[in-house]
Amino acid sequence: MSDAPIVRPLPVSGFPEWLPEVRLVEQRWLDTIRATFERYGFCSVETPSVEALEVLTAKGETSQEVYMLRRLQADADDDSARLGLHFDLTVPFARYVAAHFNDLVFPFKRYQIQRVWRGERPQEGRFREFTQCDIDVINVDQVPLHFDAELPRIVHEVLGTLGVPPWTLNINNRKVLQGFYEGLGIGDPLAVIRVADKLDKIGLAGVEGLLTTAVGLDPDQVRACLELTGIRGCDPGVVEEVRRLGVKSDLLSEGLDELAAVLGDLADLPAGDVVADLSIARGLDYYTGTVYEAKFVDWPDFGSICSGGRYDNLAGSFIRRNLPGVGISIGLTRIFAKLLAEGLLTTGPSSPADVLVVIPAAPRRAAALATAAELRTRGLRVETYHQPDKVARQVRYASRKGIGFVWFPPFDDGRAHEVKNMATGDQSAADPATWTPSAG
Amino acid sequence: MSDAPIVRPLPVSGFPEWLPEVRLVEQRWLDTIRATFERYGFCSVETPSVEALEVLTAKGETSQEVYMLRRLQADADDDSARLGLHFDLTVPFARYVAAHFNDLVFPFKRYQIQRVWRGERPQEGRFREFTQCDIDVINVDQVPLHFDAELPRIVHEVLGTLGVPPWTLNINNRKVLQGFYEGLGIGDPLAVIRVADKLDKIGLAGVEGLLTTAVGLDPDQVRACLELTGIRGCDPGVVEEVRRLGVKSDLLSEGLDELAAVLGDLADLPAGDVVADLSIARGLDYYTGTVYEAKFVDWPDFGSICSGGRYDNLAGSFIRRNLPGVGISIGLTRIFAKLLAEGLLTTGPSSPADVLVVIPAAPRRAAALATAAELRTRGLRVETYHQPDKVARQVRYASRKGIGFVWFPPFDDGRAHEVKNMATGDQSAADPATWTPSAG
Repeated sequence: MSDAPIVRPLPVSGFPEWLPEVRLVEQRWLDTIRATFERYGFCSVETPSVEALEVLTAKGETSQEVYMLRRLQADADDDSARLGLHFDLTVPFARYVAAHFNDLVFPFKRYQIQRVWRGERPQEGRFREFTQCDIDVINVDQVPLHFDAELPRIVHEVLGTLGVPPWTLNINNRKVLQGFYEGLGIGDPLAVIRVADKLDKIGLAGVEGLLTTAVGLDPDQVRACLELTGIRGCDPGVVEEVRRLGVKSDLLSEGLDELAAVLGDLADLPAGDVVADLSIARGLDYYTGTVYEAKFVDWPDFGSICSGGRYDNLAGSFIRRNLPGVGISIGLTRIFAKLLAEGLLTTGPSSPADVLVVIPAAPRRAAALATAAELRTRGLRVETYHQPDKVARQVRYASRKGIGFVWFPPFDDGRAHEVKNMATGDQSAADPATWTPSAG
Repeated sequence: MSDAPIVRPLPVSGFPEWLPEVRLVEQRWLDTIRATFERYGFCSVETPSVEALEVLTAKGETSQEVYMLRRLQADADDDSARLGLHFDLTVPFARYVAAHFNDLVFPFKRYQIQRVWRGERPQEGRFREFTQCDIDVINVDQVPLHFDAELPRIVHEVLGTLGVPPWTLNINNRKVLQGFYEGLGIGDPLAVIRVADKLDKIGLAGVEGLLTTAVGLDPDQVRACLELTGIRGCDPGVVEEVRRLGVKSDLLSEGLDELAAVLGDLADLPAGDVVADLSIARGLDYYTGTVYEAKFVDWPDFGSICSGGRYDNLAGSFIRRNLPGVGISIGLTRIFAKLLAEGLLTTGPSSPADVLVVIPAAPRRAAALATAAELRTRGLRVETYHQPDKVARQVRYASRKGIGFVWFPPFDDGRAHEVKNMATGDQSAADPATWTPSAG
């Protein structure tokens, strides 16, 4: 062995990786998510991991979190300095729709399952590289409001199928917030939204202080803002609660109508799964209507596991068309890692194989390979052991990898094949032309 | 619309993205590749996109191509400066095996389908972000030589199933090269390998010149090196050709035995699909035995579409264990983009949906949604049209998206459902509880 210093082989902090038996479960999740999205007719899109800086910062304030690129050995015409890794899938998707506008059929409904990157300090639930599963609809001129309800309904089905522990989808509408603040005579409603969005972190007193000092609201305005923030409820009646605060503006009225319609559309879901929460704002600037934010019921301090909303001015801004959209994102890695850490995932085997074919002795190697090949032509997943060896050792290998069946090709010509069911210990004759695991 | 300057929405050069109807074909390819790898019992592994610089440069000389990260707004304790995007999947996999050594079952056979990044100038067949599909085997102390033949055999099956145009897998063995140069009394065999690897780019005269001037070989040594480089053949007899050059060393002899064994193992594949080519070296330093490099037959100047080889000192170097490995990588994006550019891919529909359910009029919306829901519970992929509209417009939407069937929920209660087969134009009564596309 070399005397060179040893490079510690750990993955970089904040960049998760899984053992094979965990990855196999993650693959099942991804297959389920994809199948569900496709059952609703959403097509797959992937965009590059990398976008130009001006695309990443076309809207909003998340520049803090962006990983930019640089070539290790940059030369004079290096253009990598203006390239960064995408921090979500919404901005790249909006750019994609604008880029391919003439080749897409609208309304354009796509799902996108990809990694995203954020240059954050790692902590529980916060990774620097993680996979998101997004569905979005973008259309020319208008996206019917029923999509604002259909998207969380699809996510509800996905998480239900995956058996994710209880969670609540909190819904709000940015028009309600902005319209309410405008109705109070506040000049910069976005400033209030940014402060109110910090409620989770700085608490009610912190928000009150900032609204007074940083935004410059008077005590009546502050009180009204805090009253709005405190409204939360499961049924459309919550909209009446807002109206009772007596603030008036056209935008507020429009937002409340939208919020009531979305809540009404989702009223058939189990009670408490969808909650109107007037404190939800979503910090990113690009949302203009409905906003979503989902959290685990049992871990209220854990970050949001799904989020999204309606963005009317994102895709169109690239080509000066009116291209509103609405979307929702499942934070796959965050959910998956949390359930793994809590011991709530049943991990799979560490091999995808249905069968291990043993090689009892060197002269039987050809017969073992031929048997494996025959089983594979029938769609079975088959490992062959890598060398002639003691049979007990080969069976132990199958056991350690969680392979369900061990196949013994005939030790001598003319004898029968045999299969051992690792779960029951039963061993019986089998025909490679007809055997199936369910018959095993 | 805003008066802000328009950000051009094109993807960055060298970072490919596909329209939905192309992506759908790419997904089918990925599904086929995954299924084939799993049929041979390889498990899935994914590693982070990002590795520490010292891991990326633990072996070899590819630092030129690495994209490093930097935070857009870096603070004092920013650690991103030592992080880079992986440029292949072999180095991260070797790091992974070392990191999880105690939790893996050996021989460890994994497949890994992920994007990789190289900070290169884009040109035909060269992307800066692309997907590779790798299979590798790493074991403690020794990896049986038959894997050197099994891995290209699996790739042969994959590319055959995908219908990729004719290609040749060129095989060589680094021990043959190094042993031959040692047998010639050359002090720095790696220097010769690096020069000989440039044959494609600088031609025979260029290699001859560099061997003389840069490496300092005498004319006899140069002549012998060039003779070796010219040897190429389909059958194990090619090994005899090398032996007839009269150069002797233990390493050469060992390498020739290995090369003959691998060629022999693959002799049943169609003639010409596998060729021993003594000019193949693979520039990366980590290969120590068998090396692979595949090219299209009809586009000889197009880059290699698969590559790989045996690396005895890569994984073990991280933890001072003896962990040899062998692997091969399919350059998925390079192959896929080439066939797309040549017009050799039949693109799919732009929706995954089997059925579009129309909404003939607003009062029938609930019936349409209920019909779609019922079809989905039976596993069918179903779009509903997004709003009540002229039926002709909804049928045209299905046609433009390539959706095979249009479903008409009853216009009035008590009437029958009907389905229109878009390929044949036939329209007939159908029961959402039993209908299938094949019966359509």
